This record gives sequence, structure tokens and C-alpha cells, in this order.
Amino acid sequence: MATQETHELQQLPIGIGTTGTRKETDSMGEIEVAANHYWGAQTERSLIHFAIGDDRMPKQVYHAYGYVKKAAALVNAASGHLDRWRAEAITTVADEVIGGKLDSEFPLYVWQTGSGTQSNMNVNEVLSNRAIQLLGGELGSKTPIHPNDHVNMAQSSNDTFPTAMHVASVLEIKNYLLPRVDALAATIEEKSKRWHDVVKIGRTHLEDAVPLTVGQEWSGYAVQIRDAMALIEHSLGGLYQLAAGGTAVGTGLNAPAGFGEAIAAKIAELTALPFVTAPNKFAAQGSLDAMVNAHAALRSLAVALMKIANDMRWLASGPRCGLGELELPENEPGSSIMPGKVNPTQCEAMVMICIQVIGDDAAVAFAGSQGNFELNAMRPIIINNFLHSARILADGCEKFRVFSVEGTKLNEKRIAQFVQNSLMLVTALSPVIGYDKASKIAHKAMDEETTLKQAALATGWIDEKTFDEVVDPKKMVFPNH
Amino acid sequence: MATQETHELQQLPIGIGTTGTRKETDSMGEIEVAANHYWGAQTERSLIHFAIGDDRMPKQVYHAYGYVKKAAALVNAASGHLDRWRAEAITTVADEVIGGKLDSEFPLYVWQTGSGTQSNMNVNEVLSNRAIQLLGGELGSKTPIHPNDHVNMAQSSNDTFPTAMHVASVLEIKNYLLPRVDALAATIEEKSKRWHDVVKIGRTHLEDAVPLTVGQEWSGYAVQIRDAMALIEHSLGGLYQLAAGGTAVGTGLNAPAGFGEAIAAKIAELTALPFVTAPNKFAAQGSLDAMVNAHAALRSLAVALMKIANDMRWLASGPRCGLGELELPENEPGSSIMPGKVNPTQCEAMVMICIQVIGDDAAVAFAGSQGNFELNAMRPIIINNFLHSARILADGCEKFRVFSVEGTKLNEKRIAQFVQNSLMLVTALSPVIGYDKASKIAHKAMDEETTLKQAALATGWIDEKTFDEVVDPKKMVFPNH
Amino acid sequence: MATQETHELQQLPIGIGTTGTRKETDSMGEIEVAANHYWGAQTERSLIHFAIGDDRMPKQVYHAYGYVKKAAALVNAASGHLDRWRAEAITTVADEVIGGKLDSEFPLYVWQTGSGTQSNMNVNEVLSNRAIQLLGGELGSKTPIHPNDHVNMAQSSNDTFPTAMHVASVLEIKNYLLPRVDALAATIEEKSKRWHDVVKIGRTHLEDAVPLTVGQEWSGYAVQIRDAMALIEHSLGGLYQLAAGGTAVGTGLNAPAGFGEAIAAKIAELTALPFVTAPNKFAAQGSLDAMVNAHAALRSLAVALMKIANDMRWLASGPRCGLGELELPENEPGSSIMPGKVNPTQCEAMVMICIQVIGDDAAVAFAGSQGNFELNAMRPIIINNFLHSARILADGCEKFRVFSVEGTKLNEKRIAQFVQNSLMLVTALSPVIGYDKASKIAHKAMDEETTLKQAALATGWIDEKTFDEVVDPKKMVFPNH
Amino acid sequence: MATQETHELQQLPIGIGTTGTRKETDSMGEIEVAANHYWGAQTERSLIHFAIGDDRMPKQVYHAYGYVKKAAALVNAASGHLDRWRAEAITTVADEVIGGKLDSEFPLYVWQTGSGTQSNMNVNEVLSNRAIQLLGGELGSKTPIHPNDHVNMAQSSNDTFPTAMHVASVLEIKNYLLPRVDALAATIEEKSKRWHDVVKIGRTHLEDAVPLTVGQEWSGYAVQIRDAMALIEHSLGGLYQLAAGGTAVGTGLNAPAGFGEAIAAKIAELTALPFVTAPNKFAAQGSLDAMVNAHAALRSLAVALMKIANDMRWLASGPRCGLGELELPENEPGSSIMPGKVNPTQCEAMVMICIQVIGDDAAVAFAGSQGNFELNAMRPIIINNFLHSARILADGCEKFRVFSVEGTKLNEKRIAQFVQNSLMLVTALSPVIGYDKASKIAHKAMDEETTLKQAALATGWIDEKTFDEVVDPKKMVFPNH
Repeated sequence: MATQETHELQQLPIGIGTTGTRKETDSMGEIEVAANHYWGAQTERSLIHFAIGDDRMPKQVYHAYGYVKKAAALVNAASGHLDRWRAEAITTVADEVIGGKLDSEFPLYVWQTGSGTQSNMNVNEVLSNRAIQLLGGELGSKTPIHPNDHVNMAQSSNDTFPTAMHVASVLEIKNYLLPRVDALAATIEEKSKRWHDVVKIGRTHLEDAVPLTVGQEWSGYAVQIRDAMALIEHSLGGLYQLAAGGTAVGTGLNAPAGFGEAIAAKIAELTALPFVTAPNKFAAQGSLDAMVNAHAALRSLAVALMKIANDMRWLASGPRCGLGELELPENEPGSSIMPGKVNPTQCEAMVMICIQVIGDDAAVAFAGSQGNFELNAMRPIIINNFLHSARILADGCEKFRVFSVEGTKLNEKRIAQFVQNSLMLVTALSPVIGYDKASKIAHKAMDEETTLKQAALATGWIDEKTFDEVVDPKKMVFPNH
Repeated sequence: MATQETHELQQLPIGIGTTGTRKETDSMGEIEVAANHYWGAQTERSLIHFAIGDDRMPKQVYHAYGYVKKAAALVNAASGHLDRWRAEAITTVADEVIGGKLDSEFPLYVWQTGSGTQSNMNVNEVLSNRAIQLLGGELGSKTPIHPNDHVNMAQSSNDTFPTAMHVASVLEIKNYLLPRVDALAATIEEKSKRWHDVVKIGRTHLEDAVPLTVGQEWSGYAVQIRDAMALIEHSLGGLYQLAAGGTAVGTGLNAPAGFGEAIAAKIAELTALPFVTAPNKFAAQGSLDAMVNAHAALRSLAVALMKIANDMRWLASGPRCGLGELELPENEPGSSIMPGKVNPTQCEAMVMICIQVIGDDAAVAFAGSQGNFELNAMRPIIINNFLHSARILADGCEKFRVFSVEGTKLNEKRIAQFVQNSLMLVTALSPVIGYDKASKIAHKAMDEETTLKQAALATGWIDEKTFDEVVDPKKMVFPNH
Repeated sequence: MATQETHELQQLPIGIGTTGTRKETDSMGEIEVAANHYWGAQTERSLIHFAIGDDRMPKQVYHAYGYVKKAAALVNAASGHLDRWRAEAITTVADEVIGGKLDSEFPLYVWQTGSGTQSNMNVNEVLSNRAIQLLGGELGSKTPIHPNDHVNMAQSSNDTFPTAMHVASVLEIKNYLLPRVDALAATIEEKSKRWHDVVKIGRTHLEDAVPLTVGQEWSGYAVQIRDAMALIEHSLGGLYQLAAGGTAVGTGLNAPAGFGEAIAAKIAELTALPFVTAPNKFAAQGSLDAMVNAHAALRSLAVALMKIANDMRWLASGPRCGLGELELPENEPGSSIMPGKVNPTQCEAMVMICIQVIGDDAAVAFAGSQGNFELNAMRPIIINNFLHSARILADGCEKFRVFSVEGTKLNEKRIAQFVQNSLMLVTALSPVIGYDKASKIAHKAMDEETTLKQAALATGWIDEKTFDEVVDPKKMVFPNH
Repeated sequence: MATQETHELQQLPIGIGTTGTRKETDSMGEIEVAANHYWGAQTERSLIHFAIGDDRMPKQVYHAYGYVKKAAALVNAASGHLDRWRAEAITTVADEVIGGKLDSEFPLYVWQTGSGTQSNMNVNEVLSNRAIQLLGGELGSKTPIHPNDHVNMAQSSNDTFPTAMHVASVLEIKNYLLPRVDALAATIEEKSKRWHDVVKIGRTHLEDAVPLTVGQEWSGYAVQIRDAMALIEHSLGGLYQLAAGGTAVGTGLNAPAGFGEAIAAKIAELTALPFVTAPNKFAAQGSLDAMVNAHAALRSLAVALMKIANDMRWLASGPRCGLGELELPENEPGSSIMPGKVNPTQCEAMVMICIQVIGDDAAVAFAGSQGNFELNAMRPIIINNFLHSARILADGCEKFRVFSVEGTKLNEKRIAQFVQNSLMLVTALSPVIGYDKASKIAHKAMDEETTLKQAALATGWIDEKTFDEVVDPKKMVFPNH
């Protein structure tokens, strides 16, 4: 048993090494819990009451909660509300949580109470029991580290769960998503440069249009992604604002003065990210608007990527009965029945990911609108969809880049043929002979199945020399160079 | 002034022929109303309080309300609760409403009270005043036809507004939407028959696949539309159930016994459609589930049409740098800058319509989920989106058929070229020489840029006679004929 | 090694008992595969190329594929295209797949090729290797059971994957979802009967309205759920139609005559469900309309459940500062900071589930619209969302029933107080004294903070005896009994 | 007829004063146009081919196009490509367009070509003919002001339509939407200050929680709106980037060097808004990402407003059987059957508006994802939904403010009662006696139907003096003041 005299933390590996069950208690009474787990009564009740599907609260939420609990303990100790030895015990276990070492102790489902209270209590209980273990105490005794009175000190689920949501979301965006999107954008930019001068036919309405270069086309892709990245970065502004300190309804009841500012500063210090306390806790707890906006930014990325993936698979369509301008890497056999078939599978996966993100976004916005009074009780669905979207976008970008974009090649022969055949080069004649005559030339070539030049010269409206000078695809793509 | 002695309806054209304003009253007091309009105080208040955007309650709702008010008056007269002469006055005006002759008297906005009460009162007030006019009474006097006591007798907005929604939706579907969708399906079926034997290359994953006929491809389009039509027809089952008779909260307070059954029967008689009274009025008024389901059926049509319109514009892409299998009618110049350009504009309009319907559907489902207790107060948004979706689908189908599908032609030369070039005909060899060898032949032809036959014969795995017999596109498209 | 002389199936437990890797091959060449797994080259490539997030193709898809492969083998054997001993080997392993015994062999991600080819090949490879093992052959040799030539005989991913989608969806609906929804509806119906006579205040627009009974209110809930169940049942009609037999593009190339009918009949026999061959394979493979429609039916259930769950948590709000008509079971402590707080957590979980299903539905409809030509390459996203929605609805209904609805009690004292205080009982006076006078009485009582009766009698418009006779809540809730 | 010698603009009022039809031509040939309208052949064709529903391209698009055409003419004149007198004619008519004086000449439907070409040509035709009229020429002659060669000089629909979309959207946001949202936020802020000290019970999960003040609650509303306004402001950054100068596919073919920069600068000057040329025209024309993002910002406002409107109607629910803390203005009778009923109709309208905006947003994002190659051909649907959402939000905010928020009053008696009765004040005891004991006190009071104080003192865990000091709602709401 922990003696208050020493309070020394023992060096014990994670694990309980017992079988069967032990009794845990909460205000509802006693309940049996698997003896080899650290969680307590409230976690156990939630596991029973909410065994719905297989959606579990993402581990990133718990890692983020590790930062919250550590920061709270440090702030409470600094202000003298929590004994230093208790704070040390809590921060020691919080570091294990942050490091993912206690992941197996966080089994709860997404479909639980809308405040995330059960996941907060799961964290409180695990920190309590693991800390008790390290202090030589009795699991389930809540002594000397009480899940509510010590681990949750100056906190409520109502302010800490959205705090953990924001921290988890920022970490996912900064550390996981953006690097992968950036790598994709960089690869596209590299392609854009490499193909800077390859003239190809443009297409609007799916129909032949005037030429541009492959590099120009791909520069548009890169800019779309970069713009979406900027939106995601901007959305971090809202996520950096933390609700912690508002406690139950935003007033900060049971938290000392300055607690909100202090815990935000501490989380900022621990994560090296510019978190601050939310200027208005009533908005921060009654809404999840910053999450809704951040997911909208993810959706912007999905909207951009869908266009790019669709373009790529269309441009690679064929090999003999499609557009065939691009050659995507052949990664796997494409058909169980058609031998030798190769399909744009990375593009398809990306398109599906984008649609899923757009669907997730609909759920997030809907949930975001359903707050009531001092709480938006739709938190688990929002954080689950957010982290889901961010993750599949990130991994999707990586696989798309490595297995499709990097290995994409041009079929320059085909690209050149299209430019040569297109009638829309006639556009360059417009400023010379006027729109109406140019239009007649294009229709004439189409109807008579001739080249544009043949049709143009036949009208007598233009001589060959001028035609050759004006209708030059290479000049048309960089008209002002 | 109307004398109760005679109660004779005068033959008066619609119109008041006064300028300035007159006083109208409701339980809030007096208010000035434009003297040349029939509406009363509550309509006027709504016009002031809800001048939001330019979305007006669709006229079809009022036409449907005409049936409801007429049926109610007839039932109330038959049961002896309403004087016959009053019923006659009400039904006379109701017929004018049904015929659209009083459309200008229903100016209210969509964004009003969620029960539709203001539109119900608009109807009650207009019927009251027009009936008073016909009876020689004083406008605004509510005598001898009171908007609530007589026109609204045994009714509430809570039961009649959803009744009008159902009636309006059914009429729109039966009389306007389905005939236009049917005409489109019939045109596609006709094309499917005409092109029954034209062999073309199939495409899966946008990539060349084994052949089928154009007729087969279009038969799929027709079946998709027919299946969606069946879903829409099935959704009518829910719409045929009417809430009328439930009055304020579903109990039928202030309506005589049997009123619900009688008014549904009367509406069925007047419209010649199988309307019945909803078996449970609490569900019928507390939810709008039948509307949500009917809109989902509209969405199914949109999902099908989007695939078809996309296929058509892709197959028509070109003219020289696309797939070019189809030639769509040239309806208008396609570009303000590129002379001679023609675009698949009907397909684009159809795709946008489909996306709008899918977006409208999201609004409808969301609104459908937001009922509380004895009322879903999201009725105006739902009926507005429903009638909007139905109308743009109907008109879109008509324009798409007349200006695009009917005039679509095949570029048979190009279609044949694709079949000839495709490597996926190799699939027919699979049962003869096995998948693995067939696969090698396809890759060989691709790598060496030869025909499939050249590659096949070069391997020595098959002789020319067998090849010609097996790899015959005409046999491949009807393998079991 | 398997000797073609005997072809006897050995009795071998599942498992390979080797470490390291073995070589597997496909048309792309060789690849190393974990030696203790049955899957082959294409599965391995997919695992590498599509390691995106943690969404795995649901196991139910593979169980359904077990039926497809078993049925195909039986039909192929019956028609003489497949040796009986090969068919026996395939069906033996297919039974293991159906029984979930090979679940660990199906590791692929959702975000893969849009046709599901990789999951089909995963099944083909596992069946091939496990059958080879049972026949004493060499894993990876494709002899004597070839994944394409034998297991996939007369099939394509393009027709079998949607077949497996339909079979999996039907089984999930019939065996898992509907029983749980039915149990919830039955419980609500039981409550509705029990509380048949408990008069309560009705609420429309959240505002006090005329009374109804608790039983009436709950009867509406039950009907909403029953109606949604009927929609789900109806949507099975589309799902019973199977694409199998269409092979690559719907023409049935490489499948013998009658194969589609035969395999559908066999699957019907094996599952005891009325599956039939799809009348048009081009629609069945080029679209996923039946899935979109079936998900819309799931959404209808979500829309209904959301209203019910919201009503319950509002009616249970309090305990002292809310409506407080219902008392929900107290399952767990509600707050980490507010001692003694109990929250409507099951209702919240249900609301979130409903929102998720509505979001999933948006993804499904979007994906359903994105087919091209002979294939809708959005299958994995659709089946994953479908099975997800069905499962969380099913489990959610069960938990909601067991932990919330069954234990819900009435606070009859409070319910009675509300009825007594409400001013809207005035409505019953309307037919007696007219709407306008009744309205004045209600306003008078409100303004003077009196009871309705006091206000009514004070006006002199009605005597006490009539008032007591007319304004009787018990009569108002069953006005025509 | 215009004589090139003079080129003087005549002072002629708008109007043609002819009946019947006149012939107009385009590259498809001749067509009859109503003689009293300025539009030409392409507008007429579009009117016939796209008479779909009643959604017309919003007038704001044309007003914005007025700026585009005026700026183009000025830039083209300055660079010497367009005669000054032609430029003057064009700018003169463009000013009429900007001023809305030619609104009746822009009749086209939303459901047209996806590039907006027909609306661009509508503008070109109207400017051409009106300018011809002012110059004394013959309508339909295209002389001396040609719709393509002069009005559309250096432009394409592909770059000018998205330019007009951006200009129209920015003007709507800056001039119409934001002022109305700001006024609403200011009114809420004023209420928040006025009610700064009114202590009320907090509610989380709809359940009684610890107290806060009404002012605090409303401060959260204001911050939600202010945050959404900031998002909308930020989204203007993308909208300020104009595609003009990219012409057909983004290369700027047929536009002189520097045209993009010059026209953006000119539009900026004319509108006094910081428009700039888009840095990458391929992204600006191939996508509509800035529009998608700007609509997401509108959605954020809708999400916030929905929460606020819901809170208000719940807090105002009653008058006797609801929460009743707020008293909303009584604007109109609430029921056609229940006399004296008043409903939160402005809140309901606002909730429906928010749902519509969220539905519109789904359509916008979907459409935004459907670009192909050098064009996103989903422009009309996007601009129509955008301007629709912005307008109904703006008007909704105004009506909500004027007719609901401004007149909202507190029922302070009821608010005080709730605070007095609530058990959750027990939370303040937690730091003193611990969570577990506090929890027991709350349950004891609940079970025994006593006040919290009675229960607390009965346990002996706390003395009366401490209780009174700690459990003081006024201190609880400003715990750190």
C-alpha cells in the first residue's frame, strides 16, 4: 500500500498479471471488471451498454487526453491544489498514455454518451489505477489517486473532451496529413515542371478545345492541392483554441482562476504547438464549430483530389479505345476474367476516399448543428469522422503518389496526334478573320473530314503563310511569351 | 350584405376592383391589407414577417389545398355540421383555387412557420373573403363564412397541411413527372432496339473490356430508369395516406367521428386517386416520413439519370480527341471564343439537375429527422424541395429526350474501329487456353503494338482457325444465342 | 502432391504451420507472401498498394462470396464444365468461408479497386490454396485448383462482386437488422398499450397544445418504425436480383447458357432466400441502384429513430428544470464533475447513429451516381457504408431497447400537472363559442395568470356546467369514442 | 445606321418599341426573337432548349457580368485593341446592366450549359444590340458592335463566367449578407450585456447542470456568429482571385499580354474591392474550389444559427408545459384550430433556412468535385445555390433579429425558480467534500424529494454555514471574480 510518507513511484512495467475479475465502484455501485485491465466501473458499464458495431473511439483521442491530463496535473500542482507527488504519478502515467503504451486500456465505442464523458472517465480510471499501482496501492481503491478528485481536478468532460478533440485533430493534421499531402503536391509540381513544354489538346465540356501543355494542366492540380492545404492550415486557428478551464458549463466552476490560460499554455509547451485558451467557453462547449470548419477544409481537399484522380484515370483510359494520353503504373492484374487488363485502381481508391470524406462531412455538419444549451452532445461522432477523414486522405495521398503519380508517364505520340487533329486550333484565327468566319471553317473541316488547314485555305479567307504563323500550337499555349 | 334568407351565390368574376387598403383582423388585432386582394390579417402578417429571399410556397400546394377545403366542406355538410349553402359557397371558391384562378392570392414565402399554418390560414382567408364576396357580404367581416369556424371546420393546419403536401406531391408525380420520365425511357428503349446488333467495345474502369452491343448498353439505361419509376410508384403508397382528421395533435379533437375516413374518401373521389386516411395520425403528423421516402425515390431517379447523362457525354466526347462513338444533336454554339465548338449541354444540364436533386434530398432527410412530439415543423422546406426536385427532373427529362436523346446518332465507323483494335477480345480465349496464357498474349500484343491475332499466333498456343472462330466479336456479345 | 487418380479430400484443420514466406505468382510476376497465410499474389499486392486507414472489407462480403463460389462450383459441375472432384474441393472450402473459419485470410482494405476485383481474387486465391492443401498439392502452384480457371469459372469480379454485395446485404438485413428493429418496435408497442389511457399534454412547435395520451404518442413511434421496416423489406426486392452470369460486361461471355439463372437458383437454395437472376445484367453491373435504394430505406429508419430518441430525451429532461415526463433508466454516472448527474446517453448514442447513417447515405448516393459505361467502380465504398449503417442501426436498436426503452417509466404526477395547467384545452370550446371568443379566453388566462376555467367563466360566454362537460381532457383525447 | 464617322452615342431610353419578331443569327443559322427584347440567337435557343423548372440564373450574376464587360472594354481600349468609341458604347450599356436596368433581358434558366456560356452570350448579345441601338445601327446586325469580336474580346465564357461568379458572390457577401449578420450579432451582444448578471440554470445533455448567467449563454451565441463571420470574410480571399485572362483553357490565348492583371485591376477599381488576377488560371477554370470553400463558410454560419434558433425556441417553450425561460414576441396567431396559441415561428423559419443551406452546400461540394480537364462544367448550379444560400441567410437573419431576438424578454421568475430547485448546485461541494460524497447528497435529495441543502445537512458531512457559503449560485457563475 502507498504510504503517504514516501509516495515513491515504483518502476513497474505495464500490466497487472492477474486473471479473473476485481470489483470496481462508482456512484451506481459495484461492478466486476476484468482483473488484467486498469479501467474502472464507468468504463465497464459503457462497454456493456454501448457495444454497438465496431467503431471504437480513435486512439488519437486518448493520446491527446494524455496531454490534457498531464498538463492539468502540472498546473494543479503549480497552483498548490494538487500534491506534487500526486501530480508526478499522474504525469508519469500520462506519458505512457501519450506514448500509446496503454492503448489496450481504452476499449470504448464511438456510440456512447455525446459528451465523451465515458472516454474521459476511462482515462481518469486508467490513470488512477495505473498510478495507484505505481504507488503500491490497491487497484479500484481510488486511493491515493482518485479518478475524479485528482486526475479530473478542475476539469469536466464538457471542457476536456473538446480540448482532446482539438489536440488530436491538430496533431493528426500537422504530423500525419499535411506531410503526405505536401509530398503529393511536390510530386505533381515536379511532373508539371518536367512536362512544361509538352503541348496537348485542351478539353472543355469533355470536348476538344484549344491546346495547353501537360505541365500547365498539372500546375492546376498542384495549385488546387496547395490551396486546400492553406485552408486546412487556416482551420487550425479554430482548433488551437481550447475549452479547458470552462469545466461543466463554461463558467469555470471548480477550477481556480487562470486555470484555462495555464493549461492551454502547458499543452502548448508539451506539444510545441500554439494552443491558447478559447476566448469564450460557452461557445467552445456549446458548439463544435471549429471542428465543423476544419472538416470542411478536409472536404475541400477531397473535392480537389477527386477532380485530379478523375482527370488522371480518364486521360489514362484505353489502352486502345480511350484517351490514352497518360500511362499509369501497372500495379496488379486488373481483372479476374479479362487477361492482361490493367486498371486505374489508385485513382478509383482515391475517388472513393474523396466521396467518403464528403459523406463524413455531411455527418459532421449535421452533428455540429445539433447542440443544445451548454453542450453539443455530438462529440464522438464528430471526432471519429474527423480523424477517419484525415487518415484516409493522408494514406490515400501517399499511396496515390507512390503507386500512381510518381510512375505516370506520357504517351507523347498520342498526345501529339490529338493536337494535330483537333479543329479547335481554329480559335487562333478568330482575332484575324473574326469569330463568324472562323466558325465556318471549323464546321467545314468537320463536315468534310479534312484538316483545319485544308478547310481554311479552301475558303480563301486566309493564306497559307498566315495560317501557319497563327495556327501554331506551340505559340498558342504560351501566347504572351 | 349577405342575407341569410337567400344565401344565393352571385356570379361574380374574380377580382375586387378597389384600391387602397382595408382593415382585416385576427386575434392579434387589426391590420391594413391591400384592398384588391382577398387575403386577410394572418396572410398579411406573414408577408411582413417572412419576406425572406424569393422562395414562395409552390402553387401546387394551394391547388391541393383546394381539394382539401372542398372535401371538408362537402363532408361537413353531409354530416350536418355545416349549412349546405355555406358548403356550396366554399366548394365554389375551392374549385377556383383548384383551377389556379386564385394563384395571385397566395403570395407567402416558404420560410414561415414550420407547420404551414400561415399558408393554411391564407387559404382559409381567401376562401372566406371570396365566398363572402359571392354571397354579397363585406370583405374582412368573416360573415357569413368564417375562415376558422367554417372553412377550417374540423381541421387544423397540423393535419391539413401534410394532407395538402401529399395530394400535391401525388398529383405532381402522377400527372407531371412520370409521363415525362416514361417518354424518356420509351425513347431509350426504342434506341436500344434500333441498335440491338451494333457491336461496340465495352469499358470497365474506363478501360477497354470485352464487347457488347450498343443496344445492350442502352437497355441498361432503360432498365435503370424503369426501376427508378417503380420506386417512385411504390413511394406513392405512403403519400396516399392522409393525415386529415387528426386535427391538432392526431386525436381528432373537434372533428366528428369518421371525419378522417370521409374526407380521404372525398379527396379520392375528387382526384380519382386512391387516397385513404392514415391509419395512425400521430405518426402522420409527428413525422414526414412518407415525404422523405418519396424524395428518396426521386433521388434514385437522379442517381440513374446522372449515370446515363455522363455516359452519353463521354461517349460523344471529341469530335476528334475523345471517344466519339455518339453524335449528339448540335443545338447551339458551344463557345463564345472557340468557333464551331459544340458541347453536350443537355447532358450537363441533366447532371446538374441530378446533383441538385441529391442536394435537395439531403435537406429533406435532415428536415425529416427534426420532428418534435406531435409535429414535424419542417413542412415548408420539405414540400418546397420535393416539388422543386420533381419539377426539374420532369422538365429535365423532357428536354434531354427531345433535344438530345432523340437526335443522338452513332458514329459506326469509329465504333467498329475500337472493336477491331481492342485487346480484350483475348478474354474469349481464356476458356480455351487458360487465363494465364491468354494474359500473356494480351501483354505481348500491347508491348509489341501488334494486333491480338498476330500476338496469339506468334505464341503457337492457338491456330488461326480456332482463333477466328473463338475471337469473333459478334459471337461474344450474344455468347449463348 | 495431388494425384489426379484419387482426388480425395484430406481432413486437414485450417492452418499452414510454416513460417517465413513462399512465392506466389500472377500475371505481374512473382511476389513473396507470408507462408502461414492462404492468400496469393494479388491479395499481397493489394495489401501493399492499398494500406489506407483501417477500413477493411467487411467479413460479411466474404461469407457471401462463399455462397457465390459454392454455387458456381455446383452449377459448373452440374453442367459438366468443372470436374466433380474439383467442385467438391471448392465447395468444401467455400463452406469454411461461409462459416467464418477463414476470416483471417481476408485482410484487404476497403479503399482498393472500385470493382472489388482484389477481394474476388482474394477469395479465389484462398479457395485455390486451401483446396490444393486439402488435395495434397503445393500451395501457390494453382494446381489442381486454379484461382481463375476453376474457382472463378464462368465468373468475373464485375458480376460476382455485386452478387456478393446483394447476398451480404440481404443476410445482414434479414438475420441481423430486422429482428433487432422488430424487438424495439414490439417494446414500444407494449409501452403504448400499457400507457393507453394516461392523458398528457400535447406539444406542437414545442408549445403546449391539446392533450393526447402517452399511449397515443408512443403508437406513433411504433408506426414510424414499422413503416421504415416495410420500406427495408421492400428494398430487398432489388437486392434479390443477382448480377452473376453477366461476367465481364453483362453479356455473359465465357459463361454457359443458363448460368445466371442456375447460380441464382443455387444461391437461393443455399440461403433459403428468394434470389433470382437480374433481368438486365447491363443495369446490374453498370449501376448499383438497388444498393442505393436499400440504403435509402436504412436512412428512413434513421430518420424515424432520430425523432423518437429526441422526443424521449426531451421528455425525460430535468430532473427539476426540464419537462420531466419520462424517467429513463440510470445506467451510469453522467458527469465527471457534476455528482449525481444522469444523462439520456442511449438517446444520444442513437441520435449520433442516425446522423452517421444519414451521412453514410450521402456517400452511398454520391457513389451510386458515379458509374461509367459497363461498371460502377464504387462498390467497396457502397458495401462498406451499407453494412456499417445496418450494423450500427441494429446494435443501436438493441441497446436502446434494452438499456433505455424497456426501463422507461412515467412521472405521472408531473404529466397530470401539465395537463391541468395548460391553456390549450380551450380548443374544445371552439365548436361551442367560436374560435375568436375561445382565443380571447386563452389570452385572458395567460395575461391574468389564472386557470382557463376562471378566465372562461369570467367572460360570461359559457357556464360552469358546460365548461366542465366540454373541457374534459379525458374526453378530448378520445373525442369520438 | 451607325456611321463610323461619328460613332456618337444617342441618348435613348431602354426599350425597343416594336412588336412581333426579328431575325437573329449565330453559327447555327437564323432564329426568330421577340422584337421587343435585346437578346439574340443564342439566348433564344437556350430559352427553348432549357425551359426547365423555374430556376433562373440570378440577376446578380448579370450585374457582376456588367462589371466584367465594362472592365474588358476599358482594358481593350487602353491597349488599343478596341476602338475607343466601341469601348464607350459597351461601357455605357454595361453601366445599365450593373444598375439592373436591363434585368428583363436576362431570362435564362439555371439548367443550361455547365460553363455558363449561354449566359455570357446573353450578356454579349444584349450589350451588342443595345449598343447598336445607341449607335443608331440595326438590331441583330452585329454591326458595329459584335457580341463575340467586340463585347467578348479577349474573353471566353470559361474565364469570364467564374469571374462573374466571384464578383457576384463577393458583392452579395459584403453588401448584403454580412451587414445583416452583423446586426444580428450586435443585437445578441446587446442582450448578452443586458442580462449579464441574470443567473440561470445551465443544461447539458438537456439535463440540469450548474448555473451560468443568461448573459454568458448569449455571449456564446454572439461568438459563434462572429466566428462564422470571420470564416466568411476569410473565404473572400479565394473569391477575390479572378479567372479573367485565362480565356478558353487558361493559357490566355487571344488575350494580349497582361490582360488578366489589367482586367482584375479594373474590376477592383470599379467595385472598390481588392480583386486580383488568379495566380493559376488552370486551377481557376478547371475547378470551382474557391466557391466550394466560400459556401462551406456560409454553412458554418448556418450550423451556428441553427443551434441558436433551437436554443431560443426550446427556452421559450411553454407557456405552461415547457421551459419558459424566454418570452418571444407574439407576431401572429399560431394555430388555425387552437385559439390563443403562439409559436416560435421565426426560430422555425431560421432552422429551415439553415437546413436548406446545409443541403445547398451538399450540392455545391458535389458539383465542385465534378470538374474535368480544363473546365468544371457545374457552374450554374454552384452560383445559383451560393446566391440562394447567402440571400436566405441574410434575410433570415434580419427577420429573426427584428421580429424575434430584439423583442425577446426573460421570464425572470421562472429562471430563478429553476436555479433554486436544481440539484446540480451540489457540484460546488465537490472540491470541499469530494466527488463521491457530493454525488450521494444529490441522489439523496432526488430520491427523498428534498432540497439539496436539506439532503446535505442530513448527511452531516457539511455544516449549514459552509453550505450557504459554497452553494451560492451567484458565486458559481463567476467563480474567479
